[in-house]
Amino acid sequence: MSAARGTFPHRHLLGINGLSSADITSVLDVADSYVEQNRRADKRSALLRGRTIVNLFFEDSTRTRTSFELAGKRLGGDVINMSVSTSSVKKGETLIDTAMTLNAMHPDVLIVRHQESGAAMLLSTKVDAAVINAGDGTHEHPTQALLDALTIRRRKGKLAGLTVAICGDILHSRVARSNILLLTTMGAKVRVVGPPTLVPSGIDKLGASVFHDMKSGLDGVDIVMMLRLQAERMSGRFVPSPREYFHFFGLTREALALAKPDALIMHPGPMNRGVEIDSEVADDVGRSMILDQVEMGVAVRMAVLDLLCPPATGGN
Amino acid sequence: MSAARGTFPHRHLLGINGLSSADITSVLDVADSYVEQNRRADKRSALLRGRTIVNLFFEDSTRTRTSFELAGKRLGGDVINMSVSTSSVKKGETLIDTAMTLNAMHPDVLIVRHQESGAAMLLSTKVDAAVINAGDGTHEHPTQALLDALTIRRRKGKLAGLTVAICGDILHSRVARSNILLLTTMGAKVRVVGPPTLVPSGIDKLGASVFHDMKSGLDGVDIVMMLRLQAERMSGRFVPSPREYFHFFGLTREALALAKPDALIMHPGPMNRGVEIDSEVADDVGRSMILDQVEMGVAVRMAVLDLLCPPATGGN
Amino acid sequence: MSAARGTFPHRHLLGINGLSSADITSVLDVADSYVEQNRRADKRSALLRGRTIVNLFFEDSTRTRTSFELAGKRLGGDVINMSVSTSSVKKGETLIDTAMTLNAMHPDVLIVRHQESGAAMLLSTKVDAAVINAGDGTHEHPTQALLDALTIRRRKGKLAGLTVAICGDILHSRVARSNILLLTTMGAKVRVVGPPTLVPSGIDKLGASVFHDMKSGLDGVDIVMMLRLQAERMSGRFVPSPREYFHFFGLTREALALAKPDALIMHPGPMNRGVEIDSEVADDVGRSMILDQVEMGVAVRMAVLDLLCPPATGGN
Repeated sequence: MSAARGTFPHRHLLGINGLSSADITSVLDVADSYVEQNRRADKRSALLRGRTIVNLFFEDSTRTRTSFELAGKRLGGDVINMSVSTSSVKKGETLIDTAMTLNAMHPDVLIVRHQESGAAMLLSTKVDAAVINAGDGTHEHPTQALLDALTIRRRKGKLAGLTVAICGDILHSRVARSNILLLTTMGAKVRVVGPPTLVPSGIDKLGASVFHDMKSGLDGVDIVMMLRLQAERMSGRFVPSPREYFHFFGLTREALALAKPDALIMHPGPMNRGVEIDSEVADDVGRSMILDQVEMGVAVRMAVLDLLCPPATGGN
Repeated sequence: MSAARGTFPHRHLLGINGLSSADITSVLDVADSYVEQNRRADKRSALLRGRTIVNLFFEDSTRTRTSFELAGKRLGGDVINMSVSTSSVKKGETLIDTAMTLNAMHPDVLIVRHQESGAAMLLSTKVDAAVINAGDGTHEHPTQALLDALTIRRRKGKLAGLTVAICGDILHSRVARSNILLLTTMGAKVRVVGPPTLVPSGIDKLGASVFHDMKSGLDGVDIVMMLRLQAERMSGRFVPSPREYFHFFGLTREALALAKPDALIMHPGPMNRGVEIDSEVADDVGRSMILDQVEMGVAVRMAVLDLLCPPATGGN
Repeated sequence: MSAARGTFPHRHLLGINGLSSADITSVLDVADSYVEQNRRADKRSALLRGRTIVNLFFEDSTRTRTSFELAGKRLGGDVINMSVSTSSVKKGETLIDTAMTLNAMHPDVLIVRHQESGAAMLLSTKVDAAVINAGDGTHEHPTQALLDALTIRRRKGKLAGLTVAICGDILHSRVARSNILLLTTMGAKVRVVGPPTLVPSGIDKLGASVFHDMKSGLDGVDIVMMLRLQAERMSGRFVPSPREYFHFFGLTREALALAKPDALIMHPGPMNRGVEIDSEVADDVGRSMILDQVEMGVAVRMAVLDLLCPPATGGN
């Protein structure tokens, strides 16, 4: 049990919305210690020995599923993967029936990814397990925002006062949404940069300023966070050609020069090289944080599991 | 090792057929203790430490596979999932070759689900591992019947003397078959209730009485066990429309009123709500045992693994 | 840690090419001890406790994946399965991005199967983890050759001086290639036997003699190693009919009579019965080593994991 544990007053992690800056700081502080554990030869501790953690994925995501699976196993828990295709769900069982069935098997944590916004919240009202939202529709992806914050904090020493540009397909991005919520809560300034068709109206109400060109959007920022162009989620008329998109909104060496000289480059992955980001920039040793984000992902998910699982003496 | 262990004189669990009432009672008694283990925070014991348990599924079933996987892991065993599509089997390897190949890797337990009746029995003649039938064609699904029995026994205190109505698609149901065998062995009275096209001729020879309408079939019963309408297994002309089926054989509040006032409602899942069972009835807190069944499933599977794995000192 | 460990001077196992006879002997010696461990009731030791082993399979292979998964788990490691379809890789992430992303999660071992020759080598230059080639295109499949060697050595007491005929589809076979390299390094004589269209030119430069008929090819050999006819890898005009192929190159009782009376029969599986091998020959108790090969596969993979993982005190 970590020292910081008592300070996290939530049963579930459904989004960044609702977390205080103290809550976020708790997660990041606990995560810092797991970064070290993951670099050792023996990466397994016994905190979640005998606990059951279920990866319930209604959308494929090998990368996020693997990150949570590693997090659970390295804490000594039993991890079960359940990939449920939407078609089989439609065949005769509702999302709620699936969740309540699973719940009857006494999992301690349900990690849920679903194509519908609000799915994780809905589940959390029906089950005894702690629910972690691993991405729901275009709503939130809180562990992504937390791992991004950990990556920034470890490199810049702080979050408050930084200026972060989130660039690209804001409209379809739960990552953007969770990051805006977290970064503004922690006192950073957030800009969103993208073509008008890919920036949802009202995003400024979350506290972000809106820019429609990279030149003004990246001017003087500390962090450039690129998003994946999710062509698969776009209806026909809004899909830009990759070449055109890259020309206007791709992160090239030239675009990056607009940011501060020590600005960091981030991307949640998987990257479309040559579409939203130039390969040379993505691989910029020293400034590209893309692989650091992946590493921090495992540590942050361990921290969240740690904070949401009640101590073993408590029973359930 | 459980106290009851020495009393289970079988190497495999291929079906309920062949089990005595003492055998069944052994499984249920051992399972009772695992119900408690599964409700603790630390759900893992070390009984099967270092044992290899293989989930060999030729038919998809996320729910049953997950239940067995949890059972094996909570006993400390190593669980391997193998989903084998029939097409890949046809590509060049027979069922027997697949089984013997696996057997050469020294699994301790092979849990087999297969679309052909008799597949588990066939495998058991070829391998050294203990074989558990997790459903073979329209033949048997013994752990389902055992978990149903545990659910009933914990609520009613007994099985003998109860009257159980099994309703719906009896023809395609290995669940019905295993339940009839178990319940009659334990001294319960069993009725099967369904349209003539979905009740196989000769089912009465297993000891069940046959009813073709819910009114007479449910009259005065202690347990109403609904089956999933397996439209996917039916040839064209026998498929009833869901609406028509619900009208005549769905479990509604009105139909349920024919049973005893404290009759329990059961369903092996996944449910087709509004087809074989009304949503309100399925969710009847206090009388619907559907989630209890899922919970008992993990405990019963732990008991079966416990009873079939020889003590570690015995080697293999 | 095994006694033989210090003697294996490689960070990765990318192929048999580059291994000395002393290296090969180290693997086989360590594997011998794991054969015994796998026959016990408790098959789990703690050598790789807390280590992360990732099965990264770009090509399906339930059998090889399962063998590695068992090997990792029986050494106490945490095993993660990642099946990556080529299509999803093409969707936006290169092989290298996938590997580097995984690497950022600090795996200790990456087991890679890929349809492109050289994929494992390429990965090994990009990651910190030890890389094990589990089959790359038509290049190498080193653990298969090692398990074949262990099977032969345990039965014949040696490899040097034996004559081994490798028969069938040499052209598409990484198994043939790795076996030729290993067996010649260990002092065995190797013949390849197949139709001219299925024997690549230049194979004799690896040290194998080439035969185009079974009669002369099997004459007096100690080992007959059949290969799977990989019709799925052949372009249209080269695909022989199974019946014609069996007639000329199938291992029948008559063909086997050409070999030494105590010649052993081997096949890497899965077999096409009646295509490259007669069922009766495949099942010849006492001479068919096909299931022994599977058993030795787990032991050899444990040995490779043992030799490639640095001792836990070393960190990484």
